[in-house]
Amino acid sequence: MRAVDVIRKKRDGGAVSVEEIQWLVDAHTRGEVGDDQMAAFAMAVYFKGMNAAELAALTEAMMRSGNVIDLSDVPGKKIDKHSTGGVGDKVSICLAPLVAVCGVRVPMMSGRGLGHTGGTLDKLSAIPGFSSQLDDERFRELVETHGFALIGQTDSLAPADKKLYALRDVTATVESIPLISASILSKKLAEGIDGLVLDVKAGSGAFMKSLDDARNLAKTMVSVGEKMGRSVRALITNMDQVLGVAVGNANELWEAFDVLKGEGPADLVQLTLELGAEMLLMGGVADSLEDGRTRLTRAMKDGRGLERLRRLVEAQGGDPKALDDRTVMPMAEHRFELAATSAGFVGGFDVEGIGRAAMLLGAGRARIQDSIDTGVGLEMRVRIGDPVEVGQPLCLGTYNDEARRLQATAALEAAIRIQEQPEAPLPLIRERV
Amino acid sequence: MRAVDVIRKKRDGGAVSVEEIQWLVDAHTRGEVGDDQMAAFAMAVYFKGMNAAELAALTEAMMRSGNVIDLSDVPGKKIDKHSTGGVGDKVSICLAPLVAVCGVRVPMMSGRGLGHTGGTLDKLSAIPGFSSQLDDERFRELVETHGFALIGQTDSLAPADKKLYALRDVTATVESIPLISASILSKKLAEGIDGLVLDVKAGSGAFMKSLDDARNLAKTMVSVGEKMGRSVRALITNMDQVLGVAVGNANELWEAFDVLKGEGPADLVQLTLELGAEMLLMGGVADSLEDGRTRLTRAMKDGRGLERLRRLVEAQGGDPKALDDRTVMPMAEHRFELAATSAGFVGGFDVEGIGRAAMLLGAGRARIQDSIDTGVGLEMRVRIGDPVEVGQPLCLGTYNDEARRLQATAALEAAIRIQEQPEAPLPLIRERV
Repeated sequence: MRAVDVIRKKRDGGAVSVEEIQWLVDAHTRGEVGDDQMAAFAMAVYFKGMNAAELAALTEAMMRSGNVIDLSDVPGKKIDKHSTGGVGDKVSICLAPLVAVCGVRVPMMSGRGLGHTGGTLDKLSAIPGFSSQLDDERFRELVETHGFALIGQTDSLAPADKKLYALRDVTATVESIPLISASILSKKLAEGIDGLVLDVKAGSGAFMKSLDDARNLAKTMVSVGEKMGRSVRALITNMDQVLGVAVGNANELWEAFDVLKGEGPADLVQLTLELGAEMLLMGGVADSLEDGRTRLTRAMKDGRGLERLRRLVEAQGGDPKALDDRTVMPMAEHRFELAATSAGFVGGFDVEGIGRAAMLLGAGRARIQDSIDTGVGLEMRVRIGDPVEVGQPLCLGTYNDEARRLQATAALEAAIRIQEQPEAPLPLIRERV
Repeated sequence: MRAVDVIRKKRDGGAVSVEEIQWLVDAHTRGEVGDDQMAAFAMAVYFKGMNAAELAALTEAMMRSGNVIDLSDVPGKKIDKHSTGGVGDKVSICLAPLVAVCGVRVPMMSGRGLGHTGGTLDKLSAIPGFSSQLDDERFRELVETHGFALIGQTDSLAPADKKLYALRDVTATVESIPLISASILSKKLAEGIDGLVLDVKAGSGAFMKSLDDARNLAKTMVSVGEKMGRSVRALITNMDQVLGVAVGNANELWEAFDVLKGEGPADLVQLTLELGAEMLLMGGVADSLEDGRTRLTRAMKDGRGLERLRRLVEAQGGDPKALDDRTVMPMAEHRFELAATSAGFVGGFDVEGIGRAAMLLGAGRARIQDSIDTGVGLEMRVRIGDPVEVGQPLCLGTYNDEARRLQATAALEAAIRIQEQPEAPLPLIRERV
């Protein structure tokens, strides 16, 4: 086989065979097909898409490029959740222990943040001593003992995806639904899961700005999952405003703990319950979504979720006092406030701009090699539709560096729209796929 | 500037600025932008095309990536001819001396053959001692002294094109009209010419199989040339059958000498006169195409063209006896004949297949590093519309290797179509652009 023939076939809109895709992915991973040819292939896929068979083959080839974890001897259903990324999304941290308490295992591998979106691993790194870099064997043990784990993707997981993702990032081929789908599913299915619940976000803070694109991605992933013999469900959720209140790392983590203490913000609690109910239903533990919500709510109210997380944090080397005492985690030295300069109603947010403001404060990374400050962050004081008076605080922030605060404030000011008319917010759960 | 932003802009159908294109080409040539990013850009151009300003900028940037030869102190107009490549196309060798004799200078730099098409340099290499690897200064001297030169593209000529062409070859982005156009024009305009006459071939032996594609390429090059302040004209010519009779190297060269002796095959003579007349008109030496044809015919009949070529061959180190004595050049040891197995009329050729048959004999290269045998070749005995009897020779061949002959014969048999009805051939000159 020659890569140029495979590229040409895709370029001309023909269907590439399972064997050709398998060969291309393997040869690229081994370095026998160069980044030049893979970049041309990715751009051809951007324009011509992929049919279901091609996409399943791509996902399978990327998944099998590294270790596929075998959890078959761990009893019970293994169901994971994946979010396409938003601002203030700390759901994984409160969701995983609640689902585990209810009897479904959650073998969760998370990533770090980049650009305007944060990453679960970055948030967890605010807990002193907590280690997320564990190997496959330790991961297995945690899932068996605690019912879940909160670790980073191991190096052995889908190396083909790592290589292709880095390439897509510099060749303007990130925004391709088949390539996004294969990237997500290849990693998730390599975790050894039986099923996956997707949180596909749509809106100004999401990767998919439009509902159409989000729906398209959700449908694609659900159908590829089915083709590969796994249960996949997706919720399309609103990302036109920050999820919850906190944007940052230690502060987001604390908000996730609040959920487990029954004190979380309403939207964050709702999303946790909705995603969790899907996982319990898929895992055969709940009879219905309603039953799932009830079980999860119980685990939240009676403190079992918090306790389960505490034990996992300890097992992963973290200081369990962090769950009870905010001062155990980093806190920035200074505070600032962004006040309204006009009266009216909150019309909307540029949520990506808010995420970028948090990044500028130091809570996120512009480049993959940047280090972050887990103690800085934002707290949104208003939501879409809220009435606003002049001088009323719209957002509070914590910072350690004045120059960074200035940059972040400018970004924030541009990201909040005040208007004269009231505005009705969109529902949090927009569709189920 | 970041390459990823330029790629994204092109991918999304936006117009890339002159500065962005200049930067991208320069950075790629210097190795600061990688082949991965350039491949993605090329594929985006394949799908989205380029507007006139982008294309002029790309051509200019590629042209200026190396030496741009200055022939301004060589008196007279400098006009070159370029063919998009066909089978049996030996026009350059008889055209250049005839045009030079008529008073227009022809600073011709040619290439080597690849795949089914031959290259002028390969054909010239059949002359013992002939050297086509000369530097820019020697090139200038030859154009000044002899009115033309027949050399290979120097290393300093448009290195950006060399690099991009090699990349396109492996990434299925060769077949992009803007990229083809920029590749041709950047090299030709770097020769220091005032004008260019293009022979854009259309048909089964051409790069452009359809008249539409050929017309599109011709129009693109004419308009970019104009935008860059050079005269560019194009003839769209038929490549549904071999040009002339001979396909190979020494045999093609000999056929070009035949033209200069007034004994060339009609189609080859016609194309030489048509292209030459355009060059004389463009160079201000002829008043009309008719006048141009008359001048060229005179230079052909009275032997001045042959004499001019003889002196150039000598100046480039070649044995001038090659022009008079066929045995001075390599001749294959054995001969074969392909005879008709059915009666009827020649319905058509797969001319690319004929070119491939010659390549299989050893006359051409499958890969750029292959060596060739200038003594082997084919001689087509029939043309479209000719009546054919069973046993009548359709093609003669010369060979040195039996295994190669077998491969070539199989390719040839598949490339000649005999049918019951007579067939009217297309005119040689299809359009003028």
